[in-house]
Amino acid sequence: MPSPTLFITHQSEFAAAHRLHNPDLSDGANERLYGPCNNPAGHGHNYDLLVTVAGPIPPQTGMVMDLNTLAALVREEITSRVDHKNLNSDVPFLAGLITTAENMCVVFWNHLSPLIEEFEGCRLHRIRLYENRNSFVDYRGLTS
Amino acid sequence: MPSPTLFITHQSEFAAAHRLHNPDLSDGANERLYGPCNNPAGHGHNYDLLVTVAGPIPPQTGMVMDLNTLAALVREEITSRVDHKNLNSDVPFLAGLITTAENMCVVFWNHLSPLIEEFEGCRLHRIRLYENRNSFVDYRGLTS
Amino acid sequence: MPSPTLFITHQSEFAAAHRLHNPDLSDGANERLYGPCNNPAGHGHNYDLLVTVAGPIPPQTGMVMDLNTLAALVREEITSRVDHKNLNSDVPFLAGLITTAENMCVVFWNHLSPLIEEFEGCRLHRIRLYENRNSFVDYRGLTS
Amino acid sequence: MPSPTLFITHQSEFAAAHRLHNPDLSDGANERLYGPCNNPAGHGHNYDLLVTVAGPIPPQTGMVMDLNTLAALVREEITSRVDHKNLNSDVPFLAGLITTAENMCVVFWNHLSPLIEEFEGCRLHRIRLYENRNSFVDYRGLTS
Amino acid sequence: MPSPTLFITHQSEFAAAHRLHNPDLSDGANERLYGPCNNPAGHGHNYDLLVTVAGPIPPQTGMVMDLNTLAALVREEITSRVDHKNLNSDVPFLAGLITTAENMCVVFWNHLSPLIEEFEGCRLHRIRLYENRNSFVDYRGLTS
Amino acid sequence: MPSPTLFITHQSEFAAAHRLHNPDLSDGANERLYGPCNNPAGHGHNYDLLVTVAGPIPPQTGMVMDLNTLAALVREEITSRVDHKNLNSDVPFLAGLITTAENMCVVFWNHLSPLIEEFEGCRLHRIRLYENRNSFVDYRGLTS
Repeated sequence: MPSPTLFITHQSEFAAAHRLHNPDLSDGANERLYGPCNNPAGHGHNYDLLVTVAGPIPPQTGMVMDLNTLAALVREEITSRVDHKNLNSDVPFLAGLITTAENMCVVFWNHLSPLIEEFEGCRLHRIRLYENRNSFVDYRGLTS
Repeated sequence: MPSPTLFITHQSEFAAAHRLHNPDLSDGANERLYGPCNNPAGHGHNYDLLVTVAGPIPPQTGMVMDLNTLAALVREEITSRVDHKNLNSDVPFLAGLITTAENMCVVFWNHLSPLIEEFEGCRLHRIRLYENRNSFVDYRGLTS
Repeated sequence: MPSPTLFITHQSEFAAAHRLHNPDLSDGANERLYGPCNNPAGHGHNYDLLVTVAGPIPPQTGMVMDLNTLAALVREEITSRVDHKNLNSDVPFLAGLITTAENMCVVFWNHLSPLIEEFEGCRLHRIRLYENRNSFVDYRGLTS
Repeated sequence: MPSPTLFITHQSEFAAAHRLHNPDLSDGANERLYGPCNNPAGHGHNYDLLVTVAGPIPPQTGMVMDLNTLAALVREEITSRVDHKNLNSDVPFLAGLITTAENMCVVFWNHLSPLIEEFEGCRLHRIRLYENRNSFVDYRGLTS
Repeated sequence: MPSPTLFITHQSEFAAAHRLHNPDLSDGANERLYGPCNNPAGHGHNYDLLVTVAGPIPPQTGMVMDLNTLAALVREEITSRVDHKNLNSDVPFLAGLITTAENMCVVFWNHLSPLIEEFEGCRLHRIRLYENRNSFVDYRGLTS
Repeated sequence: MPSPTLFITHQSEFAAAHRLHNPDLSDGANERLYGPCNNPAGHGHNYDLLVTVAGPIPPQTGMVMDLNTLAALVREEITSRVDHKNLNSDVPFLAGLITTAENMCVVFWNHLSPLIEEFEGCRLHRIRLYENRNSFVDYRGLTS
């Protein structure tokens, strides 16, 4: 009998400043493209990050993965590096990136996915990033 | 290498009156079928509409689609036509329809889907409609 | 030693249609005054109603008032009469009233206040009514 | 033409006590595995349960399934049996189970799935269980 | 010129089991009084605790009180003692108390109030405790 | 008979970057005082601003104040000036201020209060500013 696959999601928050700006474009093109998000001195958000892991339920634990372990992994690998930071200047793994929620989801996925796969039977299923309560981005990897 | 597909979601709200009623059925049958939702003088909701678009990330912008453009499209095409309206009598594109959340999702999808596809690489992925905080309907088109 | 005063709040929801319209004014004046809220066929909301009761803690129960009793009172006296109704035409105790959240708060207060005072030591402290997640009205009675 | 598939979701809440504990392991192993969730006298949660049903839209009703019928089914079969209970000792259909959200999702699915399939064209699509606002589990059955 | 008084609020969460039961009453009287909350094996909640401190704004800091200091104080004095506990058996400062939200608010107030007053110009203004999203209790001390 | 006083609240959102820093203190003192909020390149938030106006209900309108007028006033006077800005460098009426939520509340109050009083019978009652979902500040003016 196939083992059921469950999906567990951990949500956390971080507060960061950023500015949308593509250095390959002129200032005018950036302003037309990003509008107020291109404001030179930046703006900011309370981001909500939802990380979903898929896996079977080991009968001995009843848990796909210990939620505290997942929480610690997300904090160490992601939120501790972006919380109370400026995403454009303070975060090495975002360096050179246009800090849209789309690009951040892909970077977070690429960073977390191999670490999740070290847990027996587990794989990263989805990264969801809210910029505010009315807009969010999902990424499910290349195979989705 | 395949380009990653991202999913961006925009949420907006509208306040509308409606009444569930099928004119092909008797009044008694309508009352049994819809209960208080069949109240002749209507009732109403603050609906939350979530529109999800799937697409690649163009490297020059870092955005599947400009969220302000998506917001303007949803407002012009959908919410400006249903907000502060009676869904049974005031909205041409819902005329003759039983105004359940299910039917509204399909109409909204059919209305928005070709407009989203005009954006390079983009397609409509999901329409979600909350009638209240404890119930919502999703539609992902015929192929889902 | 004075007995401490506690404040308990019960929240419930109702879905209703309404239209803002003052029959003593011309149609043009109503439209200028209420804008889209004056739409002739109405619109609607999921209202959130918060009822707060103040009172001492009887040592034998540890409860200002049984929350289930308060919930039943609010349901019988208020929400069962306005839920899935048209506030302008279906609700006797709102008849002739302009159905703004302000007027509804005062009516709800006047209706509930004497019933709450029948409970030993209790008095109604506040009625709060949300029309949507971004606007609400509070009423604390004439003495506040 | 294929008939569209819609997904309707009903959310409800229950308040329960529980303790994570595997009787096949030593007390020390349980404490290392579950941390504070292994507290002998238990702890508790307000759980949010989201039940999603997939199906076509019958033209006569415009509803995949009557939401009140779905709500009554979830209440009778699940929430009335777990609300204001201790999940480890009071709930026959959870007896002998480690009461993780993962295990509860599978039990709820197995319990509800055949009952949903009695409704013409309907099938259970997903069980989502929030333990708190920052963590939840999804189950979509063996075929997902 | 008088210095303005500001009110800062910190919200945190704890998950606990409890049972409403007055040992001075018969089992039947307890069951009539507390209904399902009297279930012998208990039930539980995710409680939300909001602590509000009033004070002036010192010009040098611009902060009534460092929010991280307030958060640490609430965690050490309250939430670390009740989180993942059984409120009836595991918490010394609640021993012998009927664990209603009303009684808990008063105990939390009495515990925190003198500690807040050690901060220059500060006083505890309100304790708010949510048992679930539809009910909460406020306490403002004896003088309110 | 005294006329009842009602309290209407309008909520809106803005996204801004800021840095807590007192130029009169050394860098080390700032870092000790503000911790990660002193990060030189800043961080940011989605702020929620709640503006409450008190007043009687004019019988002709049933509204303390037109909510759209209040919304427009808050947008013009406050949110349009801080949304998608850096609060430390881009906002003239915050210039020279340590941008804590406390200081911002007082500035917003002083800015809005005389404008609200131009509306017959109305006065500003409270400014509430959320920095994130777990912390907010209230200001009720000097007389509260």
